[in-house]
Amino acid sequence: MIVAVIGGNYCSREMAKVAYDLGKRIAQKRHILICGGLGGVMEAASRGAKDGGGLTIGVLPGKDKNDANRFVDIPIVTAMSHARNAIITRTADVLIAVDGRYGTLSEIGLALATGKKVVGINTWDIEGIISVESVDEAIEEIEKV
Amino acid sequence: MIVAVIGGNYCSREMAKVAYDLGKRIAQKRHILICGGLGGVMEAASRGAKDGGGLTIGVLPGKDKNDANRFVDIPIVTAMSHARNAIITRTADVLIAVDGRYGTLSEIGLALATGKKVVGINTWDIEGIISVESVDEAIEEIEKV
Amino acid sequence: MIVAVIGGNYCSREMAKVAYDLGKRIAQKRHILICGGLGGVMEAASRGAKDGGGLTIGVLPGKDKNDANRFVDIPIVTAMSHARNAIITRTADVLIAVDGRYGTLSEIGLALATGKKVVGINTWDIEGIISVESVDEAIEEIEKV
Amino acid sequence: MIVAVIGGNYCSREMAKVAYDLGKRIAQKRHILICGGLGGVMEAASRGAKDGGGLTIGVLPGKDKNDANRFVDIPIVTAMSHARNAIITRTADVLIAVDGRYGTLSEIGLALATGKKVVGINTWDIEGIISVESVDEAIEEIEKV
Repeated sequence: MIVAVIGGNYCSREMAKVAYDLGKRIAQKRHILICGGLGGVMEAASRGAKDGGGLTIGVLPGKDKNDANRFVDIPIVTAMSHARNAIITRTADVLIAVDGRYGTLSEIGLALATGKKVVGINTWDIEGIISVESVDEAIEEIEKV
Repeated sequence: MIVAVIGGNYCSREMAKVAYDLGKRIAQKRHILICGGLGGVMEAASRGAKDGGGLTIGVLPGKDKNDANRFVDIPIVTAMSHARNAIITRTADVLIAVDGRYGTLSEIGLALATGKKVVGINTWDIEGIISVESVDEAIEEIEKV
Repeated sequence: MIVAVIGGNYCSREMAKVAYDLGKRIAQKRHILICGGLGGVMEAASRGAKDGGGLTIGVLPGKDKNDANRFVDIPIVTAMSHARNAIITRTADVLIAVDGRYGTLSEIGLALATGKKVVGINTWDIEGIISVESVDEAIEEIEKV
Repeated sequence: MIVAVIGGNYCSREMAKVAYDLGKRIAQKRHILICGGLGGVMEAASRGAKDGGGLTIGVLPGKDKNDANRFVDIPIVTAMSHARNAIITRTADVLIAVDGRYGTLSEIGLALATGKKVVGINTWDIEGIISVESVDEAIEEIEKV
């Protein structure tokens, strides 16, 4: 499966830890990680996935592949700004939202609009999200897909 | 100004009335209406704008200009599915959300992510939206932009 | 009909004259002009269309509506760089290519890939383009659509 | 490097052989293959890359990851029709065009518009393309990037 971790370009140390652990567990489960390729939650999840021995895809909003954090194996350069959010949600088989602001909210909307399962940790309280408290629970939820 | 009315492809008669009145008032204020070009809230707002003597733009998700409701003057054919939502929010100077489900939620996220003012009537309860109760209040809010 | 004039952001005075005349004639025929919204051929065509009393749409690659030349009535802000070329070709009922470099070549390819008629003046020599020598001939060709 | 092989959804056996050999050599050089993910040249190149032990990315125009040919490891689901061509050309460090019709022409235009090197085998005769006669020469050209 391709699993997305979505969240903000900046985040607290605590949320970065959660994203890192998610990335690592996703990789250990032999899934591919997809994310927005930038910093914060995206970088932490990518780093975790690399430490877990996995493959990481970063779908970048800008024109420069060097915008990707250094844990992205495959930078997809869209030059499409936020419209790239729709590519992340279409490509992912399931998504985990961690924290996040309005960009993440748009991804939650796009994912749910196409019937994707969205697991949430400390994120927007939106009807349809499977809200969990821990990385373990999140991984359990994505394994049901 | 270009004013977006965003909302679902299906809606109640009551919400259609709100969207119609909004479209009409937007047109009477000499603003251009932009929307997703389809049915429900989009169609009602477009119809209102035409009855108010205005110009209407429909940014379509599909490949066929005939997908547009018959009150759309200018069908913008994107063939980009939900990614067209980002074009609506970028093009609009201000947005009014009426009702709506996950597609509308994604537009709210995209609009707020780019710093646009979003006025809401009976829609998602998202921090950052200016929530109003009536068409009059909504028009008052967009006139402040 | 919505008629696209496609061409470069920079052009010779001679090509600008051709684009201006095309825009004017398109408007006088009561068609809507669509273009990329920037300078060169796009600006000249937009200016012509306004002088002809018409309506102009500029589908912008960037994030700022102020990138549009001052003869664009409706700036569609895509923030999608060259991917906006596909929106121009999908939205236009017929296209006229004037001069142009690689961006224009991509639009010619996209237009022909979706079965659109492309009329060309002093542009790429591509099989499938209807090559003409004058504005009169170009207008004659689009009127057959 | 990420190397694109671009070409049509249908092709002759001869062109499929060329695309297959290119894919294989690209993989053997430890590059990642990116393509449009569908049939014809895209499928042959993907199959070659897998036989060469490489990784393959297919940037799909539709909404369904199952549209990808079976040699695509990572289907990027854009739901953006031809606008996905711009993502292929932005993501690739260098491109090889094999045969192809108008979709390929648009990709050549997009790639050259962003300053990418485009190597061509039996494809459109466009100024700026490095035209070669053999797979060996094509690989030699991409290795110079």
